[in-house]
Amino acid sequence: RHYGVRMEPGKGLIFRQLFESISSTYTYLLGDKETKEAVLIDPVLETVDRDVKLIEELGLTLKVAANTHCHADHITGTGLLKKKLYGCKSAISRLSGANADILFSEGDHITFGKHALTVRETPGHTDGCVTFVLGDQSMAFTGDALLIRGCGRTDFQQGCSKRLYESVHQKIFTLPGHCLLYPAHDYKGQTVSTVEEEKKFNPRLTKTLDEFVHIMANLNLPKPAQIDIAVPANLVCGLHEV
Amino acid sequence: RHYGVRMEPGKGLIFRQLFESISSTYTYLLGDKETKEAVLIDPVLETVDRDVKLIEELGLTLKVAANTHCHADHITGTGLLKKKLYGCKSAISRLSGANADILFSEGDHITFGKHALTVRETPGHTDGCVTFVLGDQSMAFTGDALLIRGCGRTDFQQGCSKRLYESVHQKIFTLPGHCLLYPAHDYKGQTVSTVEEEKKFNPRLTKTLDEFVHIMANLNLPKPAQIDIAVPANLVCGLHEV
Ligand SMILES: [Fe+2]
Ligand SMILES: [Fe+2]
Repeated sequence: RHYGVRMEPGKGLIFRQLFESISSTYTYLLGDKETKEAVLIDPVLETVDRDVKLIEELGLTLKVAANTHCHADHITGTGLLKKKLYGCKSAISRLSGANADILFSEGDHITFGKHALTVRETPGHTDGCVTFVLGDQSMAFTGDALLIRGCGRTDFQQGCSKRLYESVHQKIFTLPGHCLLYPAHDYKGQTVSTVEEEKKFNPRLTKTLDEFVHIMANLNLPKPAQIDIAVPANLVCGLHEV
Repeated sequence: RHYGVRMEPGKGLIFRQLFESISSTYTYLLGDKETKEAVLIDPVLETVDRDVKLIEELGLTLKVAANTHCHADHITGTGLLKKKLYGCKSAISRLSGANADILFSEGDHITFGKHALTVRETPGHTDGCVTFVLGDQSMAFTGDALLIRGCGRTDFQQGCSKRLYESVHQKIFTLPGHCLLYPAHDYKGQTVSTVEEEKKFNPRLTKTLDEFVHIMANLNLPKPAQIDIAVPANLVCGLHEV
């Protein structure tokens, strides 16, 4: 049976989207069905036990626990995962300023079995924000750079709305239209979007740069409740004062 | 390129999992990429506007809004969806005792484009509980019959733990091991499981029938907060006293 040139999306991939309800954070587990090597994206401290149990039940070996950026709204689970799962390495962007076993940059690959995530630097929400793109470009994990019909705020942690706009347009909207987009958060019960959809319907990123900058300068959001605890902790894989 | 006998799961399918956080309910949108016909499973009254917006953005025509059963923990959105989306029909099991445009029974199909959901009656949580199975058996929507590492309670609404045990073993655990299972609820941020996983790791359904009946008789759960409002409303597509 012929399916043309496009590969079956996520063929041979184990994939799980997991949610932490206090900070509305999505954690993503990706594993290779054959080698059982796995990567966890944006784990949350409070749900590490749930995630470890699932990793063990699925017979996976966690190679890397990676963050899309230094989060301000929750404490990362990467440090605790390293303690619980022997051999697991923590990873974050070199530009985040945080410590981790692996400090990645634009174009770097995080491999697990025959799969890989490619790092695209997408600063603007923070300096060290990245988007992880699955090898066949069928999925991308956008962190807080692009949310479903929204985007991360740009009013703290080196935030810059102009940089965010350019990151999204140059590094995310250039992915194939069918590419599934998985954000770090959602507050309305949405789980996934696509590049095509966000290019059409994102109420902020479809605007001109000037309009976008104006929108982002006038959100008047409250300071994140956990920021003064979370950011220092996340600079050291969540282990600070935990 | 050859992929053997198994079809690409969900080929030509638009699929979205949506969450309502007050009752921890999952709503599922399934659509045909070509004809744009769609089905919505277990819509919640409070999130109808979100769901209508998404259906319209994706260019879908909602043919059927179906419930897996007469819910006790939230008011269904099927009646309101009929008002908002012309031509949409409500659907529920004949054995639920509820009113709807379509009353389905074992083996019935709900078609949308070239896709179809097949009804498997899975009573035990309520008399009218069903599981919807996608045509290629790559996905099943289990309602409250089977939850991820759990199951629906059996202490009200005609609940019967023996029937539930038989339903799960005869109608869900007989699906292919790789079949993705999507429940009506999750309370721990889990989004999906598989038949293989639940057969191995479900802490209740892996027990003997006698043990299961004993577990279910001793849960000592509080009465659902919304039951006295939700059940009468859900007998008439959620429109009662709304
Ligand atoms: Fe963030
Ligand atoms: Fe229920």
